[in-house]
Amino acid sequence: MPLVRVYVSLKPQLLDSAGRTVGDALKSLGYAEAEDVRIGKMIELNLTSFDEARVREMCDKLLANPVIETYRFEVVE
Amino acid sequence: MPLVRVYVSLKPQLLDSAGRTVGDALKSLGYAEAEDVRIGKMIELNLTSFDEARVREMCDKLLANPVIETYRFEVVE
Repeated sequence: MPLVRVYVSLKPQLLDSAGRTVGDALKSLGYAEAEDVRIGKMIELNLTSFDEARVREMCDKLLANPVIETYRFEVVE
Repeated sequence: MPLVRVYVSLKPQLLDSAGRTVGDALKSLGYAEAEDVRIGKMIELNLTSFDEARVREMCDKLLANPVIETYRFEVVE
C-alpha cells in the first residue's frame, strides 16, 4: 500500500508566530544556536493506490491552503 | 547555516483524531484511496551550528512529547 508523505510549509514571507515562540523557548533553554524556527505539517497518506495528479488535487483542495502555504510530497513505499 | 528538519509523529498505537477527520474529508471529496491519514509536525531549525546531541536534546525537551510522539531529524544543508 503506497505511503505518501506531504510536507506543508507556511510561505517564507509570512510570519510564523508558533515557530517564533518555539525559537524563543529554545533560546531561553540555552540553545542559542536556534536562529530561526518554522513549523509545518507532515501528513502521511496511506493510499490503496497512488496517482500523482490525484495527490496534488488532495493537497490543493484540502491538505494545504495555497494562499499561505506551499507543499511537496514524496512516495515513501 | 545548517538547516535541520525535525519530523514529529504521534505514536502509531495512538488514535490521531485530526488525521481521521482529514481522511474522512478526503473520502467524502471522492478520494476513496485515502485509507488512513496521520498528521505530524515538520519543524525547520535554522541553526548557527549543528550538534547532533544538542538537537536530540531540543527534541526531547521541547519539540516532541516522548510519551506520545516519536521524532526523527535530518540535516538538510
